[in-house]
Amino acid sequence: MKEMEPFKLLVSHEKAKETILKTCIPIDRIENISIAGASGRVLASDVKANRSVPPFERSAMDGYAVIAEDTFGADESEIKLELDGVIHAGEVSDQEVSRGHCIQIATGSPMPSGANSVVMVEYTERHEDRILVTRPVYPGANVSKKGEDIVEGDLVLTTGAWLTPAKIGTLAALGWTHVDVFGRPRIAVIPTGEEIVAPGENLNPGQIYDVNSFTLEAILQAHGAQVDRFGIVGDDYSALKDTIEKALHYDMVVLSGGSSVGEKDLLAGILGDVGEVLFHGVQIKPGKPTLYGVAQSTPVFGMPGYPTSCLSNAYIFLVPAVRQMGRQPPAHQKTVLAKISKRLVSASGRMQFLTVRIRNGIAHPVYKHSGAITSMATADGYIILPINLDVIEEGDSVEVTLFE
Amino acid sequence: MKEMEPFKLLVSHEKAKETILKTCIPIDRIENISIAGASGRVLASDVKANRSVPPFERSAMDGYAVIAEDTFGADESEIKLELDGVIHAGEVSDQEVSRGHCIQIATGSPMPSGANSVVMVEYTERHEDRILVTRPVYPGANVSKKGEDIVEGDLVLTTGAWLTPAKIGTLAALGWTHVDVFGRPRIAVIPTGEEIVAPGENLNPGQIYDVNSFTLEAILQAHGAQVDRFGIVGDDYSALKDTIEKALHYDMVVLSGGSSVGEKDLLAGILGDVGEVLFHGVQIKPGKPTLYGVAQSTPVFGMPGYPTSCLSNAYIFLVPAVRQMGRQPPAHQKTVLAKISKRLVSASGRMQFLTVRIRNGIAHPVYKHSGAITSMATADGYIILPINLDVIEEGDSVEVTLFE
Repeated sequence: MKEMEPFKLLVSHEKAKETILKTCIPIDRIENISIAGASGRVLASDVKANRSVPPFERSAMDGYAVIAEDTFGADESEIKLELDGVIHAGEVSDQEVSRGHCIQIATGSPMPSGANSVVMVEYTERHEDRILVTRPVYPGANVSKKGEDIVEGDLVLTTGAWLTPAKIGTLAALGWTHVDVFGRPRIAVIPTGEEIVAPGENLNPGQIYDVNSFTLEAILQAHGAQVDRFGIVGDDYSALKDTIEKALHYDMVVLSGGSSVGEKDLLAGILGDVGEVLFHGVQIKPGKPTLYGVAQSTPVFGMPGYPTSCLSNAYIFLVPAVRQMGRQPPAHQKTVLAKISKRLVSASGRMQFLTVRIRNGIAHPVYKHSGAITSMATADGYIILPINLDVIEEGDSVEVTLFE
Repeated sequence: MKEMEPFKLLVSHEKAKETILKTCIPIDRIENISIAGASGRVLASDVKANRSVPPFERSAMDGYAVIAEDTFGADESEIKLELDGVIHAGEVSDQEVSRGHCIQIATGSPMPSGANSVVMVEYTERHEDRILVTRPVYPGANVSKKGEDIVEGDLVLTTGAWLTPAKIGTLAALGWTHVDVFGRPRIAVIPTGEEIVAPGENLNPGQIYDVNSFTLEAILQAHGAQVDRFGIVGDDYSALKDTIEKALHYDMVVLSGGSSVGEKDLLAGILGDVGEVLFHGVQIKPGKPTLYGVAQSTPVFGMPGYPTSCLSNAYIFLVPAVRQMGRQPPAHQKTVLAKISKRLVSASGRMQFLTVRIRNGIAHPVYKHSGAITSMATADGYIILPINLDVIEEGDSVEVTLFE
């Protein structure tokens, strides 16, 4: 019977994160995708304007295309212009505006030749085929010049830009249908454990349902990853090793369970055999039994088996890792300030991650222990108690990071 | 030739939003979907625990299952227990622990009968088949009782809960594979305008590319909607009316373009014919030419044609509307404080929405006019200048809402 060994060298939270970020390399793979699905993706090539925007001189207002000089003095004396016609949106007029004349024009329509400005409809009155102008305009008023916004050849967006809805719109304005973006991190999520059963199946004595592969999938997807959730693998050296080796073509492999120190906790051994263990055990509570290493350049995480520990470490370690790989901007995790409902004493000598529920500005700790599911079900977010914290008094203000 | 009429009664931003939220009713449709895709969805039925969690009494630690009384005094004198065997994860042992004996046990394994506590491996030493215990434990130490976390029949989650990764995990822990959620708002996005051409097609003189249907799709999807982007419809009464009527089976119809006051701006007339116009024109800059109404109980938005106006009104009006329909919690839009790079004078008598770029804590206005695409491409977010604002001095602090 193999002996159980306790964790020997716990790394600090900071050191663990540094090690992870050093080895989760941003993805260089490039995909060409439709702009319709490109929001939230990251641009993989510079975008130069292949045309000017606007592509022609156009009216910026609904009104009348005029020669500005004809309107001078309109605020003092009555000026009427002859209405020669109308230009609808999308139409190019072959009429020319001459002195004393005007053409009705819609916003966005190409300016007719001869005219140099537009009088807004608000500052006119219509008298049959004559238009009374009540305010003068200067030359160029209410007209957008060709290329005023973007000149052909301009560098409009650069590699690495995060494609917001506004930037998607910019690509559309230039006529682009597809765009080069960096690939999303492809992640294998592998639940392990002899006692783990997939939801929906029968639960025999001693068995529990797989929780972690579902929470991990949801979190990783929310931060830009493409996740394949594997079937459950038991605590068997060769089955686990085979599965891990086959998963190393992913950008990242995330296992849950099997990183504790029990006899059957084989992952550290397997990771050492197929690659290199970079740390095993972190000074953090919950979440101590966390394993991390690299095999064939692929980062491999062994997340704690306990649901709350797995969840908190996913937020603390996996989210920054996957965002860096996917070249996403750092997560703006939403935080709120609240008053803590009771005195908290930190006695663990580890950084603590404490789930709380917020009601009326009060943060109520709901953390029971790392195996408790209710601490996840009722929690609105979490607070972090630093490693050097002694005590937080009831009513002290705490920053709560919301689960979103 | 039909006369152009300027907007007559502009509604305030507040009144417009109130009208919208009164008529965008939360969706009652229910779908049963896999928990694997349920993150971010909204629970449509209460979740009662159909089993206890944990489903059996189990060890909370790696260590040795013992009778606590055998360990009393272990910190003062040497206590050794006979090791009778091992319980692996997922196994149920038929061995019973008797006085002076212990069984090695892994975290999560069912407690053997006879034992009432677990000594952590850290507080033991192994001497062949005898285990030296170096710290006493109290009865119940490191043991999770059956139902300690959730008792069968407990109400665990309630209707309306927003499914975070943690709550997805809770469903999995209870063995659920599928869950009832409210339907996502199904939205028809319809680009209109005689001069509008789909990206990828040839641009003839006087034509521009469709921008708004892409920005609208991206924003609406990000806030939980399921979007169908329609083909472009020209400025033709019967074609537009047909398209709108056929789209009224959606939960919301969003048109872009065609809500200005030009001769060909038919939407207000059509909406009046098929339903009711609730407002046309808002005291906001850019974004004044916004149309809103209801037809056959379906909210219909006529968004401004200009890209920047359409975008800002999407953030201001569409996002709260679609989140309310989808029963999503209000958007926590991310904001940062920055100093404004130059003096701004508000002379419009309208609330102003100004796109800015942030560099080194300074917010640089990039807004040119409502037709400018670059104001979207280079913007990091926007500031809102209230209707009663007179002036903002250079260096004043402004709150920037980030485009995300």
